[in-house]
Amino acid sequence: MATSEALHDRLGRNTVFSVLFTVDEAADPKGELIRRVRETGARISDLNMDEMLPDGSLAYEMTVFTTGDQQMAAVREAMDAVVGIFVDEVIDVAMESHRGGACEMRSRASIETNTDLRIVYTPGVARVCKAIEAEPQLAWEYTGIPNKVAIVTNGTAILGLGHIGCVPGMPVMEGKSAIFWEFAGISAEPILVDTLDPEKFIETVCTIAPTFGAIQVEDVKAPECFRITRELDKRLDIPVMHDDQYGTATIVLAGLFSAMKKTGKKIEDMSTAICGAGAAGTAIADLLLKAGAPDVVLCDSHGIVHRGREERMNDEKRALAEWTNKENLTGSLAEAMKGRALFIGVSQPDIVSRDMVRSMAKNPILFPLANPVSEISPQDARAAGAAVYADGRMMNNALAYPGIFRGALDARAKAITVEMMMAAARALAEIVPEGELLPEMMDPATHAAVAQAVMDAAE
Amino acid sequence: MATSEALHDRLGRNTVFSVLFTVDEAADPKGELIRRVRETGARISDLNMDEMLPDGSLAYEMTVFTTGDQQMAAVREAMDAVVGIFVDEVIDVAMESHRGGACEMRSRASIETNTDLRIVYTPGVARVCKAIEAEPQLAWEYTGIPNKVAIVTNGTAILGLGHIGCVPGMPVMEGKSAIFWEFAGISAEPILVDTLDPEKFIETVCTIAPTFGAIQVEDVKAPECFRITRELDKRLDIPVMHDDQYGTATIVLAGLFSAMKKTGKKIEDMSTAICGAGAAGTAIADLLLKAGAPDVVLCDSHGIVHRGREERMNDEKRALAEWTNKENLTGSLAEAMKGRALFIGVSQPDIVSRDMVRSMAKNPILFPLANPVSEISPQDARAAGAAVYADGRMMNNALAYPGIFRGALDARAKAITVEMMMAAARALAEIVPEGELLPEMMDPATHAAVAQAVMDAAE
Repeated sequence: MATSEALHDRLGRNTVFSVLFTVDEAADPKGELIRRVRETGARISDLNMDEMLPDGSLAYEMTVFTTGDQQMAAVREAMDAVVGIFVDEVIDVAMESHRGGACEMRSRASIETNTDLRIVYTPGVARVCKAIEAEPQLAWEYTGIPNKVAIVTNGTAILGLGHIGCVPGMPVMEGKSAIFWEFAGISAEPILVDTLDPEKFIETVCTIAPTFGAIQVEDVKAPECFRITRELDKRLDIPVMHDDQYGTATIVLAGLFSAMKKTGKKIEDMSTAICGAGAAGTAIADLLLKAGAPDVVLCDSHGIVHRGREERMNDEKRALAEWTNKENLTGSLAEAMKGRALFIGVSQPDIVSRDMVRSMAKNPILFPLANPVSEISPQDARAAGAAVYADGRMMNNALAYPGIFRGALDARAKAITVEMMMAAARALAEIVPEGELLPEMMDPATHAAVAQAVMDAAE
Repeated sequence: MATSEALHDRLGRNTVFSVLFTVDEAADPKGELIRRVRETGARISDLNMDEMLPDGSLAYEMTVFTTGDQQMAAVREAMDAVVGIFVDEVIDVAMESHRGGACEMRSRASIETNTDLRIVYTPGVARVCKAIEAEPQLAWEYTGIPNKVAIVTNGTAILGLGHIGCVPGMPVMEGKSAIFWEFAGISAEPILVDTLDPEKFIETVCTIAPTFGAIQVEDVKAPECFRITRELDKRLDIPVMHDDQYGTATIVLAGLFSAMKKTGKKIEDMSTAICGAGAAGTAIADLLLKAGAPDVVLCDSHGIVHRGREERMNDEKRALAEWTNKENLTGSLAEAMKGRALFIGVSQPDIVSRDMVRSMAKNPILFPLANPVSEISPQDARAAGAAVYADGRMMNNALAYPGIFRGALDARAKAITVEMMMAAARALAEIVPEGELLPEMMDPATHAAVAQAVMDAAE
C-alpha cells in the first residue's frame, strides 16, 4: 500500500480504514463510488475485488486514508448513497493491527515430551544455572539477556500526544517492539514504569536491568528525560539510549550527510537554526556540533535560547545556552534563521514562512520534522529556494534504532557512544539510492549496514 | 524420549547428553558399546541410526542420561575403547536447549510496507493510544497487557540451588516462560529484580506492574517471599501468585483428591505431617486446612513447629505455630508422623525411614517431593505399607500454573483466590486417566480444564 503520496500527506489523512462492500455489477456504480468518496476529501489507496458471490454480486475491499472518524462517516454516507453498493463492514486498520498487542513472548524451545520439559525446566535447567553461577559471562550464551532490550517509558510524552500515561502509551511501545523484531531480530520488551519521579524511574530501571542487554528510553518528557538517560547510562554497564533524543539526532545527521553529498556542501558550513529545544532539539544540536558544524542556535516558544534569558529556563536550558549559540544571539526564530545554512524543526506546524527561508544562506537545507504536519510545506520551502527538504514522514527513527541496538548488542558494548551514532548516520548516508535522501526502510540491508557500522565503531 | 523410568530415576541421572558417533559396521561393535556404557552407570535412552555415510560407515545419535560430567567422561572413555566406534560430538542437551534463551519477544504485526509501519507505529498508533486514553478498559483489547505475566525473582532460592543470584536463575525463568507459552499461550516475561530488600522488591514490581496482566513470584526465599507476595497481592489489582507456594500446594491438593478417589478416603480423615516449613510447606498447610483436613503438623530441621518453640523461629513461623498443630505437639519428625494419614515432604533426601511410615495410620498416602531425590524411595514406602506414593518428578507445578494464570487472565480476576486454586486441584483430579495419579502434562486438554475451572471459580 505504500506510495510516496502516503508519505507526504499534509492533509492529515493518517487514519486508515478498510471497507468491505458488495457491488451489484448490473448497476455499474464504481465510477460514481470513486467520485463520491473523493468529494469527501478522503483518499482511496486500494480497491480490489475479492470474490464473486453466489448471487452474482461482487465482494470488494477498499482502503481509504481519512482524517479520522468524521471523514470516514462521510465516506460511509457517500457509499450508502450510491445505488448498487452495499457496505458490509468498516475496519479500523490501526485499531485492528494492535488488537491483542503488537508483540508477544514465545517459546524458543520445543516442549513435546516430558523429557523436553525436564530439560527446559527443572531438573535439567539446574545445570545451566550452575554453569552461569560458576562463569557469569556464560549468561551471554545460555540466556536471552544479550538479545533483550527493555523499552522503558513513564508515559509523559507519548508521540505528540503529551502526557497521556503509561498504559495508553503501550501501543507505541509494542509497535517499537514489533519493529525491533522485524528489522533487527531483537527481543524488545515494553516496560511501563509508572512514576513521575525521575529518581524512582532510575532506581526501578536499574533494579530490573540485569534482565536486559540494553535499555531504550522512550517517550519520557524533557527535561526529566535528560537526567534519566544520563543517570541510567552512568549507573549501568549496558547500552542506554533515549530514542526521542539520539535516534532522531542520528537520522537528522544521516539526512544531513546525504544532503551534503547531493549539494556538495561541507559540515563546516552548516551553521544551524533548530526550532524546538526539548529532547530531540538538544540531542540534534549535540550531534551536529560533535560532527563539526560551526554553530547551532536553538529556539523554543520564547525565542532563541541564550545566556541571560530568564523566561522558561531550567537547568538543562541554561546548560544548553552555554554550549550552543556562540554569538549569544537573542530574538525570535526569524532572527535565528537569518543567514543559516540548515534549519531543523522539531516543534509546531506551519511556523516557518517563505520569507524566513529566504533570509537563510543560499540554497538552504530544511528538515522541518514536526508530526503530522511540518513547520513548512514542501511547496513553500521550494518556492523560497530550499535546496533539500525532508519532513518527519521521511525521517523515521525506525531507520536508526534497530540497527544501532543490534550493533551495540553484538559488540557487547557498554554504552552507545557519539562515535557509534555518527557511524550509523554515515552508514545510512552511504547506502542512499540515487534520487533519495535516505535508504529504504523495508530493505533488511539498511538495518544490517547500520548494525555493522555501529559494531565496528564500538571496537 | 519420555519414559516412566526417566521420571523416577533415583540415581540422579538427570544430565542428558546426545552423543553423535559413527560406527564401522564391519566391526559390529553395538553389543559391546551398550554393555560398556551400562557399566559406567549411565542410562541409554535412545540409540538411532541417522544415515549411512559415503564411506559405508553409519552415523548414529545416542541419548544418555548421566549423573553429570564425570559419568559422561566415563561414557566417552568407554566408547573410545570400543573398536569400530568413533565419537564425533558430545552435546550437552540442557545447555544447548537454553542457548540464546528459551523465549523471545516477537512481532505479532506484519510489517512489510511503509504503510504497515505507519499503522503499527507512528502516526497510525496514535489513534490506538487516544482510544485507550479516552476509555482505559480498551487496553484489555488493544494491547498485549491482558495476556502478559511477569515472572519475577530476586534469585534467592533458585530451584534447590539456593541463593545463586538473579542472572544465574534466568534459565529457570525463561524455562517457565516457554512452558507458559506452550501450555497456555501466555506471553510471560522473566523480570530479574536485583535486590535483597523486600520493600524495594515490592516497590519495583508495583512500579512496572501496569505492563502486565498478572504477576508470578518465583524462586524467592522464605520468609521474604511471604511478605512480598502478600504485599503485591494487596497493593495490585491484578492476580499475584508465588508458584513455589501455591503452585506446589495446588498440585499436592490435586494429587490428594486423586489419591482419595482411589482409596475411598475422605478429606476429614487427612491428618497430615509436612516436613519442610518454608514457602511450599506453609502454603500446602494453608490449602489443606482450607480444603477440610482436620490438622496439619509442620516440621523443619529443628523438629515440629509449635507454640513455645524458640529455636529458629521468625514471625512467619510463630504465626504458623498458631494456625497449625492443633494439639501443640512437640518433638521430631518421627513424632509428627505417628498416626497421620498423609505425609508430605518438601525438604531433604532420604530422611524418612520405613519405621516412620509404619508408625502412620493404616494405608497412608506419601508425597515425598524433595528434588531430585525424595524423602523416601518408592520401594521403601511400599514395603512399609504406603497406599499411594508420588515424588517431585510426578508432581510438577507446570501441571497447575499455566492453566491457573490462563483462567485468571481470561476471567480478568483481580486476584488468585483459594477457591480458584481449589477448583484447579479438583479439575486436575477429575481428568486423571485410569491407573495414574495426575493427568498428562503434554495433553493440551489438561491445561484447558484447569483454565476453565479457574475461570468458573473466579466468577
